[in-house]
Order: sequence, then C-alpha cells, then structure tokens
Amino acid sequence: MTLYLNLATLLGQRIETGLYLPGQRLPSVRTLSLEHGVSLSTVQQAYRVLEDLGLAVPRPKSGYFVSPTRRQMLLPASSRPAQRPVEVCQWDQVLELMRTSSRPDTLQLGSGTPDIAAVTLKPLFSALNQISRRHDLAMLRYDNIQGLLELRQQVARLALDSGCRLLPEDIVITTGCHEALSAAVRALCKPGEIMAVESPGFHGIMQTLKGANVQAIEIPTDPVTGISLEALELALEQWPVRAILVTPSCNNPIGFTMPDERKQRLLRLAQRFDTPIIEDDIYGDLAYGYPRPSSIKSMDKEGRVLLCSSFSKTLAPGLRVGWIAPGRYLEQVLHMKYIGTGATATHTQMAVAEFIAKGFYQPHLRRVRGQYQRNRDRVIRWISQYFPEDTRVSQPQGGFMLWVELSESVDTLRLNRLLTESSIQIAVGSIFSAVGKYRNCLRINYACVESAAMEEAIRCIAQSLNSAQTVHNCHPTSQSSG
Amino acid sequence: MTLYLNLATLLGQRIETGLYLPGQRLPSVRTLSLEHGVSLSTVQQAYRVLEDLGLAVPRPKSGYFVSPTRRQMLLPASSRPAQRPVEVCQWDQVLELMRTSSRPDTLQLGSGTPDIAAVTLKPLFSALNQISRRHDLAMLRYDNIQGLLELRQQVARLALDSGCRLLPEDIVITTGCHEALSAAVRALCKPGEIMAVESPGFHGIMQTLKGANVQAIEIPTDPVTGISLEALELALEQWPVRAILVTPSCNNPIGFTMPDERKQRLLRLAQRFDTPIIEDDIYGDLAYGYPRPSSIKSMDKEGRVLLCSSFSKTLAPGLRVGWIAPGRYLEQVLHMKYIGTGATATHTQMAVAEFIAKGFYQPHLRRVRGQYQRNRDRVIRWISQYFPEDTRVSQPQGGFMLWVELSESVDTLRLNRLLTESSIQIAVGSIFSAVGKYRNCLRINYACVESAAMEEAIRCIAQSLNSAQTVHNCHPTSQSSG
Ligand SMILES: Cc1ncc(COP(=O)(O)O)c(C=O)c1O
Ligand SMILES: Cc1ncc(COP(=O)(O)O)c(C=O)c1O
Repeated sequence: MTLYLNLATLLGQRIETGLYLPGQRLPSVRTLSLEHGVSLSTVQQAYRVLEDLGLAVPRPKSGYFVSPTRRQMLLPASSRPAQRPVEVCQWDQVLELMRTSSRPDTLQLGSGTPDIAAVTLKPLFSALNQISRRHDLAMLRYDNIQGLLELRQQVARLALDSGCRLLPEDIVITTGCHEALSAAVRALCKPGEIMAVESPGFHGIMQTLKGANVQAIEIPTDPVTGISLEALELALEQWPVRAILVTPSCNNPIGFTMPDERKQRLLRLAQRFDTPIIEDDIYGDLAYGYPRPSSIKSMDKEGRVLLCSSFSKTLAPGLRVGWIAPGRYLEQVLHMKYIGTGATATHTQMAVAEFIAKGFYQPHLRRVRGQYQRNRDRVIRWISQYFPEDTRVSQPQGGFMLWVELSESVDTLRLNRLLTESSIQIAVGSIFSAVGKYRNCLRINYACVESAAMEEAIRCIAQSLNSAQTVHNCHPTSQSSG
Repeated sequence: MTLYLNLATLLGQRIETGLYLPGQRLPSVRTLSLEHGVSLSTVQQAYRVLEDLGLAVPRPKSGYFVSPTRRQMLLPASSRPAQRPVEVCQWDQVLELMRTSSRPDTLQLGSGTPDIAAVTLKPLFSALNQISRRHDLAMLRYDNIQGLLELRQQVARLALDSGCRLLPEDIVITTGCHEALSAAVRALCKPGEIMAVESPGFHGIMQTLKGANVQAIEIPTDPVTGISLEALELALEQWPVRAILVTPSCNNPIGFTMPDERKQRLLRLAQRFDTPIIEDDIYGDLAYGYPRPSSIKSMDKEGRVLLCSSFSKTLAPGLRVGWIAPGRYLEQVLHMKYIGTGATATHTQMAVAEFIAKGFYQPHLRRVRGQYQRNRDRVIRWISQYFPEDTRVSQPQGGFMLWVELSESVDTLRLNRLLTESSIQIAVGSIFSAVGKYRNCLRINYACVESAAMEEAIRCIAQSLNSAQTVHNCHPTSQSSG
C-alpha cells in the first residue's frame, strides 16, 4: 500500500474506534508529517481520503475535524432462527437472482463478483495467453482427477498463511468452491440426515443441502463473534447432526471473523460429538487485518476438517478454480468430484498456478483488500446518511459484502422488484435462510464503488424502502367476473 | 476426405461385407481409375491404405487380392446381467484407472481421450489465445447459470444434425458430460430409486448412480442393436424404474448404434410407462456412417428426453465443456447444476463457440472420423492376428473404443496389473457393470494408433493373457505362525 493510504487507514481506525471523537480536532498536517516521517503532501492526501470517506471534514484555516454528523450505525442483532432441522426452500428466489445476474445494464449489487478490473489482475490474462501459445497438449487432456500438481503445490504454499500444513496430495482441485462444498456435503451426509449451518448463511450452501436432500439446522449467529457455540452445543445434544458447515473467516453474508479462541472451542465441540466440520474459507485471504485469520483446519490434528475454498473471490469467479483439503474424507470426496464433473478444466488451472508462482498473487491481494476496506467505510457512511434511523449494518472484517437489516416491515423481495425499474439488483435476505427468514434484510456487494453511481444507488434503495413494506392482511379486491 | 481415402473406405466396406471374398482378386488399378474417374495414382494410394489395414495384399504382376488370412472376428455375445436392481460397486477399480491415467510414461489404452494432436484442432489454441488477448472482462465474471449464449447458439445449430430443433434457452452448458449426466440423474431420482442402464455401460454412469445412491438395473444389451427392448419392457413392468439411461449412438463401450426404428420403440416404451430417458450422445458426432445417427431426443415431442453431451470426445476433454437439453426437467437440472459447480468456466466456452462459429468443427470431425475408422480396422486385424481364437471384438460404428471379450478364464484385473510392467494400461471390463461382471473383457482406446507401438502393445497384451487366468479354488498356502 502507498504511504498516504497507510496513514489514512491508521487515522480512520482511530476515528472508528472512538479514539478521536465526533467534532474533535484532528492532529495538524505538520504534526502528522513529523510524527510519521512523511511529507506534508502525503498527510494532505491521507486527509483527502478521510474526507472522501466522510470521516473527516476540513474547516478553513483550522485544519481537519472528525466529522460531527457521523452516526454510529448499529450492528444487526444476533439471529434467532428456529432451532430444529428443516428442509431448505427458497430455490425460486435464488434462481431469480441468478437470472437477473446476467443483465448487462443492471448494477449488480446482489452478485458475488470481486473487482475483476483491478490492474493487478492483468498478468492473469498474460498467463492464459502464454499457455495457449505454448500449444501444450496437456491442456487438452483429461487432467489428473485430483487436479494439476503445479496448482496443488501453490495452494499448499498459500495455505501456510492460514496456519495449514498441507501436502499437494491432501488437496483436490475443484470447479469452484461450489463443487468443493457440494462434494463435501454429499461425501458426508445421506439424504434425510442433518447438517448444522450458520444463520444467515450463504445461499449456495443452503441450496447444496436442498439438492442433497439434507436437512438444515440453522444456528443463531452473531455479527461479531460468529456461530453461537452454546446453541450449537444444544443442537448437537438434541439432534443427530451429521456435520457442521461454517464460514468462520470474513463470513458471507455478515462479515465477522470468529476469534481464534472461538474457532478452537468449535473444534473441541466437534471432537466431543465426533462430528466433521466443513470450513468454507473462500474470503479468508481477503481479511483486512493482519495477520490473516487462522483456519480451523490449522488447529485440526485428526483430519476432521474439510477445508473448502476457491480463487473466485481473490482472483476471478469465471475461472471456476477451487479446491478442497478433505482430511480423512479424501476418498469419498474424490468419488463425488469424479461423478460431479470428472477432471477439472486444465487451462485455467495452469494459468492460476503460473499467476501465483510468478508472485502476482500477494500484490493483487494487498491492493484489493485496501480497496474493499475503504469501500466498506464509504458505503456504510452513505447508508447512515440515506437510510432510516433503525437500519443496522454489519461491520465486515474482510471481503466485499455488506449485510443490511431494515425495519421488520420491509420486504426486500418487493424492494428488489421495485429496484428493477432503476436497474439495480440486490441479494434479498430470505435466500440466506433455509426457511426464508431475513425478509427484511439485504446484502450489498461493495467490491467496486464508483462513487457517483454507487452513492446514487444507495440513495435510490433508501427511497424505495417506503414502497416495499410488507402488505398486512390485505383484503383481496373484489373482481367482477364477466 | 481426400479422394483416395474415399475410395479406400468404399473398397474396404465391400471387403468387410463379403462382397469381395478372402483370396479373391480385386479390380485392377486401371479399371477402378476409369470407373471412379480418378487418377491411377489415386487408386494406388487407396490400395496402399487397404494393404496397410491388412484388407488387401499385392501379388507381383497380378495386382491386389483380398487378404486370404483374414479371420472373421466374432462379435461379443449379447450380455445377460442379473435383472434386478442392485447397488453399484467397483469404485476402487475406477479410482485405480483414474490414478494410473496420469502416468506420463504409460500407453493409456484405458483412457477416454480422443486424438488431441490432430492438426485440425490447432485453431482451438488460437481461439483460446485470441480471447485472452482481448482482455475481455466477461471471461472473469460468473457466467450466466445456463451458460454462454453464443455457445448455446452453436450447440443448437449443431444439434440439427441429429434431427433436434433446440433453442438456446433449452440448453444448459455443463462442466463436461459428467456434470450433465450427474445433474440429470440427481434431478430425476431420489436415493433408493431405480434406474435402468445398458450393460455393459460407461463406468462414469455407473458411478454417478452409486454417488446418488440410485440403484441400477442392468439391461441385456446387444453389440449390434443395443439395449434389449424386451428385457427393458420386463424390467419396467416388474420394477418402479424411475428413468432409463442409454448411450444409443456409437455406444461406449460396445460401439453399436441403435437403428432408428429401435430408438423409436424405446421412446414409445418410455411413453407407455411414463418414464424419462437420459440420452448420452457424447460420441454421436463421431459416427463413421452418413448421415449422422438421429438422437432419440429428435423423436421426442413431450420433453421426455434429457439429451446429454460434451465436446470432450469431438474436441478435447481438458476443456470440460459439455451440455444438456433437459426438456421438461430444465428447472430441476438447473438447480443441480447450480449446486454442483455454480456457473461454467467462461474462457473455454468462448473458445469452443468461436471454433465452431468459424467453421472449424466439421472439418475436424471429418478428419478424425476417417482416422478412427481406419484405426478400428487396423486394431481389429492385429487382435485377430495375435489374440486366441475364441476372442470376440465389437464392431464400433463410431468413436474410438473397442470392446474385447476374452475366454471366461481370463481376469482382466490381473491382466491390467501384469501390463503395468510393460507400461500399458487398459480399461478392465468389470467397471462397466454395477456388480463387477465382464471380468473377462477389456476396452481399448484406438484414437491414436502409431502403428509400431500400438501393434507391439496388442501383441504384448496377447502374450500376457496366459498369466492372467483366474485362480480357481486355490488352496491357501499354509503359513507357519510364529
Ligand atoms: C461463502 C461462499 N462459499 C462459496 C461460494 C462459491 O464460490 P465459487 O464461485 O468458487 O464456486 C461463494 C460465492 O458466492 C461464497 O460466498
Ligand atoms: C459415454 C460417456 N459419457 C460421458 C462421458 C464423460 O464425458 P466428459 O469428459 O465430457 O465429462 C464419457 C467419457 O468417457 C463417456 O464415454
């Protein structure tokens, strides 16, 4: 990161955490320049970023002040789903989301796509290009069923960052994290069996359970600390839960990263009930903080954790390159992978392996992490400006998704349909629950925040809220039959 | 095809069908030249091909004669599997096949890879290359869940050749035919339900049933006319068969193409019992004869047939581009596709669409079809030369797979292990049955027949047969316990 962004991040954090209070005068440009050993213009650039983020305001001749109008946004409450196994529904809504996701003229705030236009991603095109120029026949063959060795070597190397010691033979490359999750679920659970999941939780996971006829038990989840271990323990005591599926780092949709100590306790719980854990770590590399969060897999000595991930969020989803480290379930997962898609496409695996091996991965991560963190703050500010007082928003610790909880009376399904007219698409909250809870919530993608368009969209969503109230017991209008 | 290959094919067919008898004198070069309006050297080239195929022999000063040593190979008998629903096993053997498939020093006669070195495939590299040079961001995004429109348009166009009128919106692009089949099976059948399949049948299909906990009922299948409609009818009467899965054109592994009239009858049977048909047409475009076989789908007016295919056999399997036209089951299949892999990789879809749109597909097909047909004749000749008298081989009508039935006493699992020492790998017969039948059979890939190496391999397999006999009731050697 450049010097001024570093400084802006530091000051921003101090404002966020209340070290500097609303309306308080901020250190002068000269003071900061001396203190941090940077030039005056670097400090000025940093202040301009804070201004842009709405965190600081300049006053003529007196310097910068913490924005006095800053409203402290409330976090969503801990969720309280019904705690018994249920069949997953909501496929219609997911399909609607998929279908509208391909409209080119629509602002896709509901999608899960990262910033694929980042300049640090350019070498990926070159890798794809060079590989096809080599006319390497290997790219036309069925690949090894476990995936390209060169890529598994790189994945093993990267996994060290989350504390995992993996060998290439522990890893199976998959067609995206979707396939990793789907293979894991089908490897562990038979139809009718029960899996414990976070609530709210990624719709792809809910639908995977539906597709495998596995019942979901939705566990209350806190927007700061993650899945409730108390509620999970109760569920494990009461029901024959076959596996636990969590996204403990930079969670989708609510953005928390479970503290290490809670990850440890989750693992111990799983050990006590001899239950495997499917750990979806797809956003882990996009954590804003340092060091990158540990995976539960890194604490696991028994092969109990099936670690699933992909390069869809860190690089690009169109590549469809994911992976799973299934621990002691390797062979069952391989079987599911074989029947699901056979081998994985070779060309894109080669390109990703090359991109990482040549050292392009970490610089790209550094760039987008900073961008996403700044975008988060910006979007939260707009929401605090335009949305009703009782709106609650998550405080994501990584990734590029914001969870917004609106007044109980808002129906985001209706909201989404209203927004179609303004060519805006959001992800409705109900798809993040097995039974359609969270109808008053929505998820927004902030990977690319082109200030003007995005601010306008947030304002537009806020304006549509009134018309998107739930219709209560409305009497059917009588129709004269001809 | 070139003139001389045309002529060679014609003469070859006349020899095959007995129009010219073994030892009989063939028309002179001059006669054929006049009759077919081609040059003398064209006829000579054609005769050299026939000589190469072992169909004709030259006699000094007397011209060409039908090879007198030609042995008429027997076809495999119609299969007689146990006709009741069973659980599929054999995953261990399939995994072994997968694992040995990636050994670079081994002659992969067990694999399903076509000739990927064909010059007519070169434009595919250019397409991949040009697309990545365009830096088109679309290739990094999640694709439309149904697949790239441009590719679905091309698939719809090609499907006309098998008599199908499809619209792009009828088609879902998949990660290979594997995903098409897997999505179809899971869309139609719940665990414990029963599906009727050909016996022998592609191991990927058997394993898909295993993975979905669907029971298989193996139906007797004839190496010339395909699945026994009588036996199928009986099965439909006796059991609650949820769906029928067939590979009716250029079948894998036994190479038949069901005559149109039998395809019609199969469809009527399915109508009578209101059963959907999953039609795997992956080799249909590689039929040697003209016109290309009709698909059952082309006869279906009710959306009863789910047509599955891919470009793995016609172009290259490493691309992982397949498709399904699921008829009235579109939405269920979409759901399974969504949870299986999400979208399909974009880059390779673009390349395949471009390859077809630019007119490279048909010339490539023409080239490899001719090559495969000649290879088939060559390999059958070698087998007739080197293998025991009682060997039976299939007479494939397309594709590049030969099914060899050996004496009952041969165990091809042992054979395969013996062959490892000679760096040869075959596909053992038992994986083509749900319960491990066909242990005395093997499947050989003849896509690339580099004369010397391949003839040598065939000889080597023949020589290993004696050591690969089943061990009958052998008394366990007594071991002194310490
Ligand atoms: C938590 C989570 N897991 C898995 C996936 C699927 O990832 P992929 O595109 O690699 O299949 C997503 C994508 O939205 C996700 O958010
Ligand atoms: C009959 C049949 N169906 C399906 C497949 C799988 O094809 P793909 O590689 O496109 O997944 C094969 C490949 O061996 C096959 O032979």
